[in-house]
Amino acid sequence: SVRNLGLEKIANTVRFPCKFASAGCTLSFYHYDKVEHEDQCEFRPYSCPCPGASCKWMGALSDVMDHLKKVHKSITTLQGEDIVFLATDINLPGAVDWVMMQSCFGYNFMLVLEKQEKYEPGNGQVFYAVVQLIGAKKEAENFMYRLELSTHRRRLCWEAAPRSIHEGVAAAIQQSDCLAFDTPTAQLFAENGNLGINVTISMVDGVRIMDRDSS
Amino acid sequence: SVRNLGLEKIANTVRFPCKFASAGCTLSFYHYDKVEHEDQCEFRPYSCPCPGASCKWMGALSDVMDHLKKVHKSITTLQGEDIVFLATDINLPGAVDWVMMQSCFGYNFMLVLEKQEKYEPGNGQVFYAVVQLIGAKKEAENFMYRLELSTHRRRLCWEAAPRSIHEGVAAAIQQSDCLAFDTPTAQLFAENGNLGINVTISMVDGVRIMDRDSS
Ligand SMILES: [Zn+2]
Ligand SMILES: [Zn+2]
Ligand SMILES: [Zn+2]
Ligand SMILES: [Zn+2]
Repeated sequence: SVRNLGLEKIANTVRFPCKFASAGCTLSFYHYDKVEHEDQCEFRPYSCPCPGASCKWMGALSDVMDHLKKVHKSITTLQGEDIVFLATDINLPGAVDWVMMQSCFGYNFMLVLEKQEKYEPGNGQVFYAVVQLIGAKKEAENFMYRLELSTHRRRLCWEAAPRSIHEGVAAAIQQSDCLAFDTPTAQLFAENGNLGINVTISMVDGVRIMDRDSS
Repeated sequence: SVRNLGLEKIANTVRFPCKFASAGCTLSFYHYDKVEHEDQCEFRPYSCPCPGASCKWMGALSDVMDHLKKVHKSITTLQGEDIVFLATDINLPGAVDWVMMQSCFGYNFMLVLEKQEKYEPGNGQVFYAVVQLIGAKKEAENFMYRLELSTHRRRLCWEAAPRSIHEGVAAAIQQSDCLAFDTPTAQLFAENGNLGINVTISMVDGVRIMDRDSS
């Protein structure tokens, strides 16, 4: 592969418009900044927020809930700021995802519990639990979520800002920016192979959002 | 190896006294129960509670604090129910232990943070944090401890009953009955390579212990 230094030089001095210009983005970038921006661009279409890469749907934020209701009908939704996310049969072998929706403050949140095999087979699994907002990154900053596992005299909890579905949960899991625990810990909190995770969503102090109708 | 079935038969029908009989244990057991009991026997001598197996000291519970003060002089002690356990240089390579003493309710607790290499070298490390009581198993049941990592808008916490030093922390770590987190999570909460863990010790509701002088 011969490098075309002439073309590279031009590419590094000319600004190109963002590839989501037709969707409304007015920014332009030198070649080397463009890819990074486009990954973050607020006009980039939203992917389906379901974990795993099986669903290839993409579209506008305003169409995400419709997509979920039509294509992912089996996902349960619970109303309220404080609910229990019950993951059944956590001892199922292999990589498994559990998904639930939580509706509060006029927003919809997707709760994800993901079980991954450890690097060496037979060494058990790691569980990752995380919450994402069906909303933009800016909106996600207005909330906090809390995940709690508890039994008599034992408790594990994690609090953080939810991810926007625009960022997705895969990065959060890869960076361990989520509640992570292994199989023996899961067993400490499970009952009959089912794991109940208390999920509490709250608004960050000082933020006021008009209560939207989430129906 | 030829099995001596005659001897095995006798061993399974005769009761033997606990090997700590001279220390005060009056119980006796069939051969197959004896080992299990002796592992739990309250008259078994106490080992040095420092993590790792480098110190071979054994003795009575009443001599443990003297041993620590004489032989493990470098261990810091903080007074109070609510303290910060500051682990410095958590990025040091390899397996490392951090140890601190916390003194409250007239008792001494040993705080342990242990860093272990994951199964596959290069895949990072796992941290385990746990609290043990310099006291008997029965006494440990009177307390709860809480470990908390926190920064602006992120928090990880773990609550459980402390281990007695008679049980030791190795089993707790092996069973993941402790606060366990990996290197990326440690980085989320560390500042300049130092990790501060908030430690709060409380008494279980309904328990009253006369305040002993811990000096
Ligand atoms: Zn753009
Ligand atoms: Zn989909
Ligand atoms: Zn005994
Ligand atoms: Zn020692």
